Amino acid sequence: MISKSQIKYIKSLHTKKERLLENRFIAEGIKTVTEIMHEQPGIIKDLFCTDDFYQANEKLITSKKINATHVNSKELSQISLLNAPNDVLAVCNNLPAKNNATDLNNTYSFYLDDIRDPGNLGTIIRICSWFGIKDLFCSEETVELYNPKCIQACMGAFLRVNLHYIELKELIAGEKIKTVYATALKGKNIYSESLNNGLIIIGNEANGIRKETLQLASESLTIPSAVGNTESLNAAIATSIIASEFFRRNL
Amino acid sequence: MISKSQIKYIKSLHTKKERLLENRFIAEGIKTVTEIMHEQPGIIKDLFCTDDFYQANEKLITSKKINATHVNSKELSQISLLNAPNDVLAVCNNLPAKNNATDLNNTYSFYLDDIRDPGNLGTIIRICSWFGIKDLFCSEETVELYNPKCIQACMGAFLRVNLHYIELKELIAGEKIKTVYATALKGKNIYSESLNNGLIIIGNEANGIRKETLQLASESLTIPSAVGNTESLNAAIATSIIASEFFRRNL
Repeated sequence: MISKSQIKYIKSLHTKKERLLENRFIAEGIKTVTEIMHEQPGIIKDLFCTDDFYQANEKLITSKKINATHVNSKELSQISLLNAPNDVLAVCNNLPAKNNATDLNNTYSFYLDDIRDPGNLGTIIRICSWFGIKDLFCSEETVELYNPKCIQACMGAFLRVNLHYIELKELIAGEKIKTVYATALKGKNIYSESLNNGLIIIGNEANGIRKETLQLASESLTIPSAVGNTESLNAAIATSIIASEFFRRNL
Repeated sequence: MISKSQIKYIKSLHTKKERLLENRFIAEGIKTVTEIMHEQPGIIKDLFCTDDFYQANEKLITSKKINATHVNSKELSQISLLNAPNDVLAVCNNLPAKNNATDLNNTYSFYLDDIRDPGNLGTIIRICSWFGIKDLFCSEETVELYNPKCIQACMGAFLRVNLHYIELKELIAGEKIKTVYATALKGKNIYSESLNNGLIIIGNEANGIRKETLQLASESLTIPSAVGNTESLNAAIATSIIASEFFRRNL
């Protein structure tokens, strides 16, 4: 049974403003919440779940001392952001901030320049997790990690990739990165030319890479197309193709 | 000025049922509609646009004899499916059906087995267009091409990729395809092993490839991960990585 004040509190976390004030976020669905319970149970403040979910996960909930409240599907739909709520919702504390442990002269990563779509950000985090990219860098205007649509799209991968919101200028100054690639229509062919470790900039969905970011790039990278330049690729798709190629070269 | 009956008709096309009955669909936004005007103006039944759009495209509208109605932003938001309507909406007749012109023993393509997310389908069509894949095959339960979210995600690429809704059994029998790959956790490493032309099956977002489809596959393909098997890739991301690798091999 969930209380009215709990419902009110959870609903307040549907907004970015409250999430920032509270340093908390909402994670939903069996897959995402189960991963949090396994990998970072300490961040779960409250769990709201159906009897079915509780029974299936009782051992884990008990052993990790997770504070669980039983809800029925009507109550769950009151607090959920999903069209089809999926058995469980967790109120979580933000992940602890981590320092960047990646040496960008010895490996590669991405710099997201104002990615706005939370689904794209979540998908890119999932791609990084798949290819073993541990640190991902975002401009300060890039969409918030804790946006519920981003958390949803991550499928738990946000637990394994550290996000750093930092302006490129600052990052480069601190890390002394030798190679910073801009993705562009004209640049090094990713399939046929040599690739260095470093940072690859991915631009905003509508406007591409900002001027001030672009001038910090040392080289350009291109994904060749079979056709002309009328085509474009979604930001997450471009990231996956580039990550795949860097990964292949390092095998 | 748009009439009440026009508004009613356009809104009816927001539903799949009416789209199927009418063989019509809605395309929105400057990029998508401009591409239709250039590449397939004949399918546009009616165009509803702001004065700004009209002025910017008057030559094209006149030369292609497109039936255009001026609307203000309030009227546009009444007929639009977008949160932020973008200057133009077109009611279009479905694209003419095309025969499969692709010889799947001489090139490669994908078979989508019950992809349900219209954004994923649109993104996959955009990937196919980028890599020059002209024919894309979908199971009959795969989401409708003309779903507005799919058309939106295509960014016009649906004009350059022919979709064929056909069960795999039927397709294979007709085309005599030698190699049909299933994407799977254990299979040929896409980076290091030889790849044949043929068809690559991409499974449903939640349930993967259906049993009856899987048993028609001749081989399995795997995208290696840097980490264990806890990770998964979004269907469109998996498609892009595989398409990229096939494209690279054929350069």
